[in-house]
Amino acid sequence: MDVVYSELHALQNGAYELIGGQLQPPVEKPERAETIRAAVEAAGFGPLLSPESFPDDTITRVHTPEFVAFLSTAWDRWVEAHGPYDALPLNWPVRTFRQKIPEAIDGLLSYYSLDAGTPITAGTWKAARTAVDVALTGARLIQDGKRHAFALCRPPGHHAAADLYGGYCFLNNAAIAAQYLRDNGAAKVAVLDVDYHHGNGTQAIFYDRADVFFASVHADPLQEYPFFLGYADETGTGAGEGCNANYPLRWGTGWETGYADALDDACRRIHGWGAEAVVVSLGVDTFEQDPISQFKLTTPDYTRMGERIARLGLPTLFVMEGGYDVAALGDNVVNTLTGYLNASVVA
Amino acid sequence: MDVVYSELHALQNGAYELIGGQLQPPVEKPERAETIRAAVEAAGFGPLLSPESFPDDTITRVHTPEFVAFLSTAWDRWVEAHGPYDALPLNWPVRTFRQKIPEAIDGLLSYYSLDAGTPITAGTWKAARTAVDVALTGARLIQDGKRHAFALCRPPGHHAAADLYGGYCFLNNAAIAAQYLRDNGAAKVAVLDVDYHHGNGTQAIFYDRADVFFASVHADPLQEYPFFLGYADETGTGAGEGCNANYPLRWGTGWETGYADALDDACRRIHGWGAEAVVVSLGVDTFEQDPISQFKLTTPDYTRMGERIARLGLPTLFVMEGGYDVAALGDNVVNTLTGYLNASVVA
Repeated sequence: MDVVYSELHALQNGAYELIGGQLQPPVEKPERAETIRAAVEAAGFGPLLSPESFPDDTITRVHTPEFVAFLSTAWDRWVEAHGPYDALPLNWPVRTFRQKIPEAIDGLLSYYSLDAGTPITAGTWKAARTAVDVALTGARLIQDGKRHAFALCRPPGHHAAADLYGGYCFLNNAAIAAQYLRDNGAAKVAVLDVDYHHGNGTQAIFYDRADVFFASVHADPLQEYPFFLGYADETGTGAGEGCNANYPLRWGTGWETGYADALDDACRRIHGWGAEAVVVSLGVDTFEQDPISQFKLTTPDYTRMGERIARLGLPTLFVMEGGYDVAALGDNVVNTLTGYLNASVVA
Repeated sequence: MDVVYSELHALQNGAYELIGGQLQPPVEKPERAETIRAAVEAAGFGPLLSPESFPDDTITRVHTPEFVAFLSTAWDRWVEAHGPYDALPLNWPVRTFRQKIPEAIDGLLSYYSLDAGTPITAGTWKAARTAVDVALTGARLIQDGKRHAFALCRPPGHHAAADLYGGYCFLNNAAIAAQYLRDNGAAKVAVLDVDYHHGNGTQAIFYDRADVFFASVHADPLQEYPFFLGYADETGTGAGEGCNANYPLRWGTGWETGYADALDDACRRIHGWGAEAVVVSLGVDTFEQDPISQFKLTTPDYTRMGERIARLGLPTLFVMEGGYDVAALGDNVVNTLTGYLNASVVA
């Protein structure tokens, strides 16, 4: 399986992030992608491809131009106002407030963000922009006839909406890749999100569309970030009604205690809908030892996850999302891809 | 002038707050109220009265019962989940999200807050609840026939809306006091907010009402926190149309370069509307040396501010809001009250 990777991911390297009320060393750190790269190479995946450059209009198919312009200039404007340290917003336009776009950089961070845990650093734009190219290079491989590819994106993307960043995500790599597949021949594309956290950004981007099916298996938002999206009653709207499927699962869920059934149902829905290709938002923070998560998947479970995805029988682009237990990240990703490949060969 | 004060304000004493992207020692700290108390005593104001106890239903006249129940239990629930350190939320239900009320304490903080700079601590509820009693004790003095009183509230209140805390504010002392005056004889009550930051909470609470006029002179939200409310075109809605007046002023505004004119117009509006009493949300962070603000008022300007408020000729309750230059806080508050008193005697 081809693996697309760029060392430029390491340019996103925040000094700290807000977790559980405290500024701590980030769990979303460069070591994550390096560990995964080393593990997939050691397991014989490859070749390791560098990303091609894709134009910005691939991004503005799912993000607003104003948001992209903001992200690409935010660091310089922040440094001018505050100095060269990580940029974090302070407040948000929640209920009772208006959706006005302020002038000051602090206000722009507030307007375009959804949390206080996603620092914009000197290298954020370059890293996030490159992650898009990584995802799109993977999508082009699929479009060119490959049955599968792994886009080793970092920073992740699935929390980013059309004009919102947060949850370590700036540009929605998976959504941009899905849109690229739509724009280059696939009539119906599914996104299957197996990250521990609901892919609120991807859902929001495609919620009113009938040409992209979004299915997500994740921690119940009553208990877990992002809290305000990802419920089972969110089934799409307008033309997109019936094209969104959420599987919120309670803290403590394991493979045999709910996860496998939910994943199975999500795959059946995608199959029944008639997807021609699937983009997998691959987070492995469902792992039992993940430092910020509460599911109980074990390393062997990821093999079964890959096998189940393979049984979709679809051209498959894996796009890396979350997963924060660096010691096990490599094994869990390798098992997913190996399970997928082995079941694909059998099929 | 009677001064209402309780030492319990010191129970709100956060370890840090998020300012300009960094967790720093809070500028909203107990020394603020102690400095003001010492200065007003030294200036001969008094007597210093302890607050009476008012029932919770004075609070739920402007806040939702669910919000009050959340605030009163948040610390214990946070400690149970995380441990005994300051509670801060991580994300917010901004656009694309639903207004669902989660189960987890982290999600509740997210739902009920508007920023990441307002820590809930072990003493927050007691301090905030006492600040309400301080404000209401002042309101009762007015209702009982006093021409003026100073409620030395801390924590401040004007950013808190019906079910939102933030901006160092938990319960809206000024709004609760204004409502108390309405419920106990005054047909029409005005709130004049002279804090540097827009009093978004007070505005939101009374925005659709014809019996409370809200006027605010503050930093332009295009440039300054809270960014998403406080614009000049917000004039009230429904029955409250015409009962809201905002005076956003640019960074660098001084007394003679815009402030005096705006204050004068706000007072003329309040007078013309026919207010029977006025609650002054008294922030002195308009001061030229304030560490988080960008106006240029000098210490003598506060005397003129007090004089202008006195010329309203109305029963007047001063409620303390912001102001963070501890060295000058006392003088600036004393000058405001002295200017008011002297002009009242002359009138």
